[in-house]
Amino acid sequence: MFDFALTAQDPQTQARAGAFETPHGKLLTPVFAPVGTQATVKTLTPRDLAEAGATLVLSNTYHLYLRPGTRLVADFGGLHSFMGWPGPMLTDSGGFQVFSLAQMRKLDADGVTFRSHIDGSLHRFTPESTVAAQEDLGADVIMCLDECAEPLDRAYNEAALVRTHTWAGRCQAAQRRRDQALFGIVQGGIFPDLRIESARTLRAMDFLGYAIGGLSVGETKEQMYSTLDVTVPELPAAKPRYLMGVGAPEDIVEGVARGIDIFDCVLPTRVARNGGLLTRAGRLNLRNARYAADPLPVEVGCDCYTCQHFSRAYLRHLFKAEEILGLHLATVHNVRFMLRLMADIRAHIAGGTFAAFRERFLRDYRLPDQEVRHAQLERRRQRQAEGKSEKGAA
Amino acid sequence: MFDFALTAQDPQTQARAGAFETPHGKLLTPVFAPVGTQATVKTLTPRDLAEAGATLVLSNTYHLYLRPGTRLVADFGGLHSFMGWPGPMLTDSGGFQVFSLAQMRKLDADGVTFRSHIDGSLHRFTPESTVAAQEDLGADVIMCLDECAEPLDRAYNEAALVRTHTWAGRCQAAQRRRDQALFGIVQGGIFPDLRIESARTLRAMDFLGYAIGGLSVGETKEQMYSTLDVTVPELPAAKPRYLMGVGAPEDIVEGVARGIDIFDCVLPTRVARNGGLLTRAGRLNLRNARYAADPLPVEVGCDCYTCQHFSRAYLRHLFKAEEILGLHLATVHNVRFMLRLMADIRAHIAGGTFAAFRERFLRDYRLPDQEVRHAQLERRRQRQAEGKSEKGAA
Repeated sequence: MFDFALTAQDPQTQARAGAFETPHGKLLTPVFAPVGTQATVKTLTPRDLAEAGATLVLSNTYHLYLRPGTRLVADFGGLHSFMGWPGPMLTDSGGFQVFSLAQMRKLDADGVTFRSHIDGSLHRFTPESTVAAQEDLGADVIMCLDECAEPLDRAYNEAALVRTHTWAGRCQAAQRRRDQALFGIVQGGIFPDLRIESARTLRAMDFLGYAIGGLSVGETKEQMYSTLDVTVPELPAAKPRYLMGVGAPEDIVEGVARGIDIFDCVLPTRVARNGGLLTRAGRLNLRNARYAADPLPVEVGCDCYTCQHFSRAYLRHLFKAEEILGLHLATVHNVRFMLRLMADIRAHIAGGTFAAFRERFLRDYRLPDQEVRHAQLERRRQRQAEGKSEKGAA
Repeated sequence: MFDFALTAQDPQTQARAGAFETPHGKLLTPVFAPVGTQATVKTLTPRDLAEAGATLVLSNTYHLYLRPGTRLVADFGGLHSFMGWPGPMLTDSGGFQVFSLAQMRKLDADGVTFRSHIDGSLHRFTPESTVAAQEDLGADVIMCLDECAEPLDRAYNEAALVRTHTWAGRCQAAQRRRDQALFGIVQGGIFPDLRIESARTLRAMDFLGYAIGGLSVGETKEQMYSTLDVTVPELPAAKPRYLMGVGAPEDIVEGVARGIDIFDCVLPTRVARNGGLLTRAGRLNLRNARYAADPLPVEVGCDCYTCQHFSRAYLRHLFKAEEILGLHLATVHNVRFMLRLMADIRAHIAGGTFAAFRERFLRDYRLPDQEVRHAQLERRRQRQAEGKSEKGAA
């Protein structure tokens, strides 16, 4: 039911192309999943997603557990029919959101107790309960409950890794449905020995696929890439590999080069709603006055509905006038941008030209926000140095 | 270029069906125009509009004059190409919004000076400037600058009517483009003699079409209907008749019965964004807990994208979770509801069965908000009685 067949291997990098069978259809990999947190990819209909070329859609168990409730979704035949998306889906365990969104959390060996960010109500996740919730939701690929530790904090990562591995075993034991592929999640921060230990431990547990978690949450890009360099070779070549929450275009190209098959990220949809439009030349900020009378489409040559019908000037007008249609049209473009990028990547892997594509892409794709990002990381490191990273003991 | 041909006359009412030729296509009347205030019907793409069966789209000169500016729209070839709507369009003069939205307005015989509701900047509209602005926008049907007075205030209406008629003549004289149909606007509040005087005055000026303004702004439904009863017979039968800003389903049926051909209103799109969904049985409030697990579509038998794909429970979830897709899907349904209603009305006029249709529609269409509305009107009348209606003297 979950056959994964490699169809091409790039001769110069670890990049590979494949086909991953799921109960709701075949995924050509490398694949990018737009994020539909609350059972909707924000501003897009399922038809918009299909037209953009989406094949895999992610949704978040934490949000759906709180609202409308995973039992209600189950009563509607699961997420696919509830939200009208007929293709493959993936849900996370909810653990990451408990750590990043919930108002309060109290961790113990058995699970985590937290307060809803919506109404402050008290809830508890255990490995077993998050598998049950994901069985209610019915996605094709589901995730083990894990603990996503501060990536640069060694002691925290060591402690968290024990829980993550124990919980992975409990998730396997709890799984009842066999039409869902349960993936294990490799953790270990930026520490090569911890990552290797985690990959080997989970590999021995024989999951249908392996995720790499805890990246793109505070480390530098170099640390992310070097962590992939040591982790991916420890994963079985014949199983799909999923880099969780990573989706900046440059990170996808680098992740593919290191052997990743599956990506997801809110970046394209979130930056769209802020007026940030993705192009092969970098990110374009629609709110900028320079586009006020610009007759060009967002990206010349793009085949999305937005670029086929509207000027940058019109889109800028919609953003300035705070019109919802602007958020929609920007999202349509950014999702299509990502899925065209993935199609290009797959074609270049199949053609043996991925290394040249990677070089050209990274040369052309400007990162205007890189300074901003580095400043943010620097501040985060300073906070950590000041001893504010005691989440592991919470 | 603006041929208007009547194709059917209901035997029992004043309802009539026709075809109105415009430079961007033929309108079958009675027709309802969704409102695209800022060059977008909120949350809908032009494709969504076409799929809903829209033929005529209205946009507001006041808003576009302030942002992005009518000259900019002209540089893009007019509204049609700027917003990507290839079909017939209609713009108002901006006068109504100056009276209802602008922060300040100072009226004189020559025009009106006002402050933008966006940034408080000072602007001036004259009959000539609003025609020029509408020529920049390039809609198929454009409107004279008029003064929309408090409908129950006789003295104000008498004074306003003089300006409205003078300005109508100045608008005619100012018009340069011959590919736009300029409509005159009948005013006169709820006063039959003023309405008759206004209709006769404008009729003598030989416009390509006639609008009835100043209704649905504070009078009762009975007053609106009786005003139509005395006004419509004074208009030439061979010219299209447009009831401005009216679009509650029951008012459309009653307006058609009195010989109106064209309607526009923000009601279907605005109530959609508040979770109000239109059905032949009345308005359904999606936020109501009774729909939390309701597997039915919004309206059984509706052919819109929303009803074809989603349950009330899913839509309610989107509204509770404050997801933009909810606003979109509700708008798709409400616009399609209005345009199916218009198609039904046209079919029943053509078939000679409109009177029975009207009776059945009004029997089945509950008005859950009627009490609320009557209370609002009562408050407005009290305010007026307290002497707060001196807008005419402003």
